[in-house]
Amino acid sequence: MSKTIAINAGSSSLKWQLYTMPEETVIAKGIVERIGMNDSIFTIKHGEGEKYEVIIDIPDHEVAVKMLLDQLIDLNILGSYDEITGVGHRVVHGGEYFDRSVVITDDVMEKIEELADFAPLHNPANLMGIKAFKHLLPEIISVAVFDTAFHATMPKPAYLYSLPIEYYNDYKVRKYGAHGTSHLYVSQRAAEMLGKPVEELKIITCHLGNGGSITAVDGGKSVDTSMGFTPLAGITMGTRSGDLDAAILPYLMHKLDIDIDEMVSILNKKSGLLGLTGGLSSDMRDLQDNKDKEDVRVALDVFYDRVRKYIGSYAAVMNGVDAIVFTAGIGENSAIVRSEIMDGLTWFGAELDPEQNAKFGEHVISTEDSKVKVLLIPTDEELMIARDVEALR
Amino acid sequence: MSKTIAINAGSSSLKWQLYTMPEETVIAKGIVERIGMNDSIFTIKHGEGEKYEVIIDIPDHEVAVKMLLDQLIDLNILGSYDEITGVGHRVVHGGEYFDRSVVITDDVMEKIEELADFAPLHNPANLMGIKAFKHLLPEIISVAVFDTAFHATMPKPAYLYSLPIEYYNDYKVRKYGAHGTSHLYVSQRAAEMLGKPVEELKIITCHLGNGGSITAVDGGKSVDTSMGFTPLAGITMGTRSGDLDAAILPYLMHKLDIDIDEMVSILNKKSGLLGLTGGLSSDMRDLQDNKDKEDVRVALDVFYDRVRKYIGSYAAVMNGVDAIVFTAGIGENSAIVRSEIMDGLTWFGAELDPEQNAKFGEHVISTEDSKVKVLLIPTDEELMIARDVEALR
Repeated sequence: MSKTIAINAGSSSLKWQLYTMPEETVIAKGIVERIGMNDSIFTIKHGEGEKYEVIIDIPDHEVAVKMLLDQLIDLNILGSYDEITGVGHRVVHGGEYFDRSVVITDDVMEKIEELADFAPLHNPANLMGIKAFKHLLPEIISVAVFDTAFHATMPKPAYLYSLPIEYYNDYKVRKYGAHGTSHLYVSQRAAEMLGKPVEELKIITCHLGNGGSITAVDGGKSVDTSMGFTPLAGITMGTRSGDLDAAILPYLMHKLDIDIDEMVSILNKKSGLLGLTGGLSSDMRDLQDNKDKEDVRVALDVFYDRVRKYIGSYAAVMNGVDAIVFTAGIGENSAIVRSEIMDGLTWFGAELDPEQNAKFGEHVISTEDSKVKVLLIPTDEELMIARDVEALR
Repeated sequence: MSKTIAINAGSSSLKWQLYTMPEETVIAKGIVERIGMNDSIFTIKHGEGEKYEVIIDIPDHEVAVKMLLDQLIDLNILGSYDEITGVGHRVVHGGEYFDRSVVITDDVMEKIEELADFAPLHNPANLMGIKAFKHLLPEIISVAVFDTAFHATMPKPAYLYSLPIEYYNDYKVRKYGAHGTSHLYVSQRAAEMLGKPVEELKIITCHLGNGGSITAVDGGKSVDTSMGFTPLAGITMGTRSGDLDAAILPYLMHKLDIDIDEMVSILNKKSGLLGLTGGLSSDMRDLQDNKDKEDVRVALDVFYDRVRKYIGSYAAVMNGVDAIVFTAGIGENSAIVRSEIMDGLTWFGAELDPEQNAKFGEHVISTEDSKVKVLLIPTDEELMIARDVEALR
């Protein structure tokens, strides 16, 4: 039996989950927030709903990891550091270097750093988590699991933008996508649930959270995805605009007298559902509670429209669709969102079963007769990370 | 019997077509090119294939129109100016003011000028044509036919971007679309050819030229279209990028050390098929002749992919599709483009008849059994302009 820890490090946070493998049992999980600020919040959940929380100044990721390991011993979750046999790190951007998970070497760390150009907020933070564990647990294997890796199978006509080709050749401007680990997990689970080899299925996976992306999975491989060069593109999101006419940028920059960095920051942080509702909320739950308001109703209709359009376009990409999967915060928890989207796609041969759609948890939510199956599958990126560590150990 | 002239004025050009109405017979047509430059080219085609051409310096649009009218008399096409009973002008941008063609008044001209903000290259040029005719033929009716008007029926969730709502309220940033007159014409013709009321049909119209756009026409009304705030958005075009991740702009602007206006100029003029083929050509005919080259093959596949995705997404928007129409330069003339696109959409119930697809001219190109009908319909924006003049006279 081995213990594997899955890590998702942000610039001021560190989320983790500790598994016994190969049983895939979560024995503890937690989050450290406000790293590098005052009053950092350190939380561990373990056992039968037990929770340990402390507010304390945590100056950096290495201190956070040291505290985490020591606390796991104090709480008798670990006997010693040695019990951890592997650590897996979520890394947001793998560029064109990584089409699968890899054991982290110096060369891998250099490449992750180099790719910070594409993911300036995320890759450096992921690297802080990697270095903290490398320093404290130098002997154990560490594995990088890339958000982009699953999309490495996209064919060139899908990942190329219609730009001067030298921007791809010289600067690697192309579609990379994101949420790959989630799209991979739910597409594999969908095939298992339908009792068919994933190689024989055309699946559209809808990862709908505060950020969201939709992927066309043909024969188990990502062949197109809605996020692009960055996570700004695609559907309407909590605060991100998704797709728009690029010629809007100069128009607004001149009107508002702002520069390109400020403009794109607005597109990332003040747009989407938040922007459409005049700053009311980026949270789907708040919006569903307020849909008597006209602008909220319109914002929701924009969201449904964009998701439906991607589903339709990916049915075209694959020349067919056998199953549509909903996952992530909104996809797993909002029956009304699922029904609003799917009720507009009956022509595609997909029919929701209202009774099934009202239920939570992993199950098929289309009717028996539905030609296209619709599934609700809670995602589990941490488990995929733990599995990849185990596979590479 | 009346004679109506349809005008399409560009910044240095003036295309025209003279009709007898209500017979809808073209009695002459022509183009003036290089207006305001040396060696302007003045061409008239009339009668049984007769052509009149002269190279001469034409300083402005008014001189061009005067020369045109005088030449029509010299060639015995007109007896006098008075025979022209109406003039119709294509106007690119009607903003939110115009949802149909209108008789041009001073107020209309002011609004067309105001909308130059949205179409800086086109609306001022259209206005030059309007003013030239107003000055030379002050007594006759002149009508503005807007490229955006047909799309005025788009519902709010289709035309709103997922941006802070004040950008729509204060600056009218929204989707306007283009090629409206063409989409309207071919969707009406499709209904006539299928022998069904357009009100009962869901039609996807593919206007594929050097610029291109795709429209979802539900019950005779545009409910979504691929061009956006400007004609930059949508599918891959001859030199325009179509849709891309807006976050690419700051990345490339920093790499290339260029400003936003230069960046967007590249997206409009050096991207699309031209950019993807490393500057080889923006012309579909050249590219079809060179598809033994790997990069040309990829560029064409990008084009097919983007068109297919829009068709799929508009089937989703309308929750169905009865007919798909191809029109404009590429859509009317390239059988291989039509078959490449449609062969990837058999799942949608559309099956091309290769024999019919090989033929030119207005006809159905799908098989008898095809659930979704596919049609080739040469567009005729000039005729629509002449009809609107006649209707408002």
